[in-house]
This record gives sequence, C-alpha cells and structure tokens, in this order.
Amino acid sequence: MNIYRYPGNPIIEPKDIPPYLEDYEVIGVFNAGVMRYGDEILLLLRIAERPVHHDPKYSLSPFYDMANGKMGVVRLEKGMPGYDFSDARGIGTPDGSLLTSISYLRIARSKDGIHFKIDDRPALFPENRYEIYGIEDCRITQIDDTYYINYSAVSNLGITTCLASTKDFAYMQREGVIFQPDSKNIAIFPQKINGKYYALHRPSSSSFGKPSMWIAESPDLLCWGNHRYLMGCRDGCWDETRIGASCVPIKLEQGWLELYHGADRNNRYCLGAALLDIDQPWRVIARSTLPLMEPETAYEKDGFFGNVIFSCGALYEQGKVRIYYGAADTSMCYAEVDMAEIMRGMKECEGLSGK
Amino acid sequence: MNIYRYPGNPIIEPKDIPPYLEDYEVIGVFNAGVMRYGDEILLLLRIAERPVHHDPKYSLSPFYDMANGKMGVVRLEKGMPGYDFSDARGIGTPDGSLLTSISYLRIARSKDGIHFKIDDRPALFPENRYEIYGIEDCRITQIDDTYYINYSAVSNLGITTCLASTKDFAYMQREGVIFQPDSKNIAIFPQKINGKYYALHRPSSSSFGKPSMWIAESPDLLCWGNHRYLMGCRDGCWDETRIGASCVPIKLEQGWLELYHGADRNNRYCLGAALLDIDQPWRVIARSTLPLMEPETAYEKDGFFGNVIFSCGALYEQGKVRIYYGAADTSMCYAEVDMAEIMRGMKECEGLSGK
Repeated sequence: MNIYRYPGNPIIEPKDIPPYLEDYEVIGVFNAGVMRYGDEILLLLRIAERPVHHDPKYSLSPFYDMANGKMGVVRLEKGMPGYDFSDARGIGTPDGSLLTSISYLRIARSKDGIHFKIDDRPALFPENRYEIYGIEDCRITQIDDTYYINYSAVSNLGITTCLASTKDFAYMQREGVIFQPDSKNIAIFPQKINGKYYALHRPSSSSFGKPSMWIAESPDLLCWGNHRYLMGCRDGCWDETRIGASCVPIKLEQGWLELYHGADRNNRYCLGAALLDIDQPWRVIARSTLPLMEPETAYEKDGFFGNVIFSCGALYEQGKVRIYYGAADTSMCYAEVDMAEIMRGMKECEGLSGK
Repeated sequence: MNIYRYPGNPIIEPKDIPPYLEDYEVIGVFNAGVMRYGDEILLLLRIAERPVHHDPKYSLSPFYDMANGKMGVVRLEKGMPGYDFSDARGIGTPDGSLLTSISYLRIARSKDGIHFKIDDRPALFPENRYEIYGIEDCRITQIDDTYYINYSAVSNLGITTCLASTKDFAYMQREGVIFQPDSKNIAIFPQKINGKYYALHRPSSSSFGKPSMWIAESPDLLCWGNHRYLMGCRDGCWDETRIGASCVPIKLEQGWLELYHGADRNNRYCLGAALLDIDQPWRVIARSTLPLMEPETAYEKDGFFGNVIFSCGALYEQGKVRIYYGAADTSMCYAEVDMAEIMRGMKECEGLSGK
C-alpha cells in the first residue's frame, strides 16, 4: 500500500502537552477526532495523564471523585494476590478493572494540519457517574451546522458511549449516554439515509463471539435501535480477534468508505477499509484484504502500548485521505493515501452481513 | 415473607410438553411471560429442547441452521482440551460458548390460572441470524390494544433483546433487535411517562463492574437511549453478584413496583422488589432488604440448574400479586403474595441511582 507518512511524525507527543492536573504527567496524546472548522483543522485529542509517583512498589489508579468534584487516587501494592498488574493500561482486581491513567479531551488547532497549537484547558473532562475513569477516543460528525462528538465514557459501570454537541468548539453540550455498556468505536454517519440517522458501533459479548462491527439507526441521534450485525473478524487475518469503526464514514459515489481498525491475536492494531452500500449501509460491498496501515515505524511499534495504529478521524480532500492516528497509545501522527489506492486494495464481499 | 405457594406446584413440567422437534426431548418449561387476554391467562412459556442421545461420551449443541432452515447439531467429545463441560447449560469453547439445548416460546392458556392447555406449535421459534441458539425469557407489556413481547435472542453474535408485537397472540410481528449485545432482562413499562416510553434493562460489561439494572427511554419502543444506571448489586446480600428486571413494572399510587431477580456468589437466584418514582422512574425509592422468595422447596432447589427462582411475569389483581415463575430452570410454578406484604418488606433507598 502506497502510504505517505509525514517524515516529522509524531506531530504531537506527550512532551508537547503541559499536564492539566496538578502532580500528574502526560503519558499519551492519541486517538484524536478531527474536523475542518473555519480555516483551521481541529484535533480533539485524547490526553492521558497519570499521577506522578516514585515508588515502583505501588501502582496508582486515578479517578474523578464525584463526592467532592476532585481527582482521587487508588494506591495498590504490586503483587497483591488476586490482582493483575501485567497490562500497563489497567489493573485487574477481584471487583473489576481499574485504569492506571485518566483520559480527557483537549483541542489542538492548526492552519496547515501539521503544526498544532494546543488549548490549555480540556474541552471535555470527566464530570459525571459514567466518566469517573475517563473520556476516550472521540469521533466528530458534522451534520448541518452542528458538530456531534461521541466518546467512550469509562467507569466501574462499564464502557458506555456518550454524545456531546457543539456549534463552535467552545461550548460543549452533553447529550447523555447513547450506547449502553460495553460500547466503543461509534461512528455516526454525516447525514440521514432514507430519513434515518445511522451509526456504526462495536458492542461486545461476555461469552459469545468476538468484538464485531454493528450498525444501528436513530430518529434523533439520541435513541438507537434496529441493531444489525455488519461485519466480523476474519480468521488468520490481521483483523482476526476484534474490529471496530475508526473514522466517520466518507461519502463516495461508490458507497460509504469506512476506515476501521482490526487487531490480531498479538494485539497488533492495523487500519483497514470497508465500503458500504450508499442507500443500505448495512450491506458491506467490499473490504481491504491487507491492512492499509500497519505498525512499522519505531513510534508505532514502541510506546505505552506498542504495535498500535488507531485512527479516530480522517479528512477526505482533493482525492486524498488525510489520516490522523494514534501511534502506540502514545502520540499523534499523520499520513496520507490516495482514495484510488484504498479502493484498489479492497475485495468484494459475499455473505450474510447486515441481515 | 408471607408467600403462598400453590400446593400443586409445579403447574407445568417438561413431561407435560410434547417436544416440537423430532428426536428432541423437552428438558425445561420455565421463565414465562404472562398476560390476561380475554377470559384467559396466557403464559408465553420458554421451552428448552435438546437432541435425544445415548452416548454419554459426547455433548451435543443444537442450533438453527440458517443455510437450510432446519436444526443442526454440533457434537463434541467430553473432555476435549480447551473445552469446558462443567456447566449443564452450555459448553465453553475457544471460540465462545455453545448451548446444550435450544429454547423457543410456546403459549399456554388457562381460565383459572393454574390448569393450562399448551399450544402444539411454537409462538416464536428461531428464524434469523440473532436467534440461532434460541429465544429465551420473554416479558409481555400491553400498551393500548397491542402486546409487546421482548425476548433474549442468543447466537454466536451475543445475547441481544428483540421485540415482537401482537394484537391477538396468533400473528406475531418481529420488530428487530432493540438492545445490542449483551442485553437481558428487559421490562418495558406499560405506558408512556412524560411523553416517553421507558424500559428497564441489564447490560453487562466484560471488564468493569457487575451486571446491574439500567433504565432507558424511547420515542417509539424501537430505538432506545439516555441509558442510566438504576441500581446495582449489594455486597454480602442475596443480590450480590448480578441483578435484573423480572416482571413488567406495576403501577401503584406509591410508584412503580418492580419485581427483580438477584443472584449471590453461589448462583442462587431469588426474587425481590424495588419501588421506583412514579414520574421519574430512574429514581429508586425503596428496595427489599430480604428476598421476597428464595429457593426452598425441592422443585426450586433441584433441577436442570438448581436453586433458581426466576420470574418473567406477574399479575396484580385484587391486592394480590400473582407470580408465575420458573423453578430450577425446569418447571413453571405459581405463588401469591399481598402487595401490602411486599411494601412492608422494603426499605427506603439513598444514593446515586439514576444520576
């Protein structure tokens, strides 16, 4: 695949971001939603911060403490029986997982799409029951003059998807939980189809099947139903263990182009593409055989959680797809690819999708 | 708790049901939805059938085979490495669970609510992608002249909740998947509140928290949103590991009375009650301290999956709650309790529910 990676990647790194929280450090800036707004390109960055600490015997888990409206920290001695400290991102406990960092969203602004100025304050910071472990991985969909931002809200109740809306990227209106636990990787289509809104989503089942892509419809963007299985994992492929929507679908003559992510048994995350029917987006027309992008460079292979390419937003301009993506759960990077190249890499699908 | 159990319990047993499938046997008739219709009480029974087989070396898993519209069977040798045969209800495989029986819904009719005549044919039998492992545990909500039946649809895509509607309990109209995987224990309120439909539901998270009760709202019964956490498990209590709605909420002057089920660490399922605010059903006013009903009798303690009382429907008539319930995942039973008795057993709640 003929992909252009910006030679100055990563374009934003943790060291570029002053922490928002006192006595915290930024360990990741990644998985940003993207939108062209006025004469600028905006990234809605996921920023992960963790409490600064010096005692390697302990693991710390930050959370938003609803009781007093401040941050709190759970301190756990490593090696405690019944606890799992093997994943850098979280701690397994007998009562469910804890996270080792807390994420929130912050805006970065750029004229050239490469050099970004980062807001001092969060655009969305945890503030309610569903967000106490953080706000992650947003996607931005423009419909008329409103920008809809959906994001993963994490708490001890599970991972829900919430909606916020804005007209100016200054005031954000929270619109509530739109997808129940566990939900991730929601991408709302940028227009109604046959009088209804549509969204790709990624539910997960505790005992049946692998995390797959589904599609749902809505009269109002708030209530969602007619959930349909869209496409699943492919045995032995780069997308064999879990898949989910990455970017907001792009409207083409041939159909809706969806950039999605897939992981294999080694948790290696790649980016691929699928083409959905223009009027019946629950039908998959074609799908990438090989990944569009796979972790190759040092900044994609090494990091807080290595071997990850994860995009939450791309722009389609002058025949090119401008991909913003998180690398290794650590930094933001930029790449370009011709739409024609993406189309050439896809193979027609047969089967049962969307039935 | 002063509960009257019908002395002739169980009122319906597997031996009362001729199998619908050839070379299958009925192993369970349980967890029925209930509705008064005309001069009869109808039960929409969950019937579980399994292939007759004589070789104890093998475990069989039936499924609806979409390719030819017939039943198929997966045959697995017990003790295969990587497979778990320890739960009578299912088989753990490296690719997810399989079930040892297939469930569907069949109507039973009675004038006195005790002696039932059972239809020869299913009312709802698996027929699509989401139902290949069966249809389970329905609840029936009457709204105006329509009866809405929601049920768990099980497949290798997960457990979704689907909706069907009927006006006559003869023709059933399928309305699609209304709650994504994994969803169970949906109870739709019997009227709009503040112009919206409401439903209790029970999502589950793979890594965070315990299965809890949530509430969602809808403009049309098909699309659901504004998901809110309603109430959770109580440490050290009978409902310490998982809870879910049992019956359709009953409207009282004091609020909405919800009979719900809870299980403890030993998978012992009991029935309890909660009272929800009449205008703001996302607020829990009070909740049973002790279970209303717990497995006590032989038919509740012993069976296909013992120590289970599980109700999917009750009628509130002349001050009495007439509870139909599945016992030990095997048979249908009947009990009565005064509403006043239920109310006396509840304690006022404080806290964060529904925020």
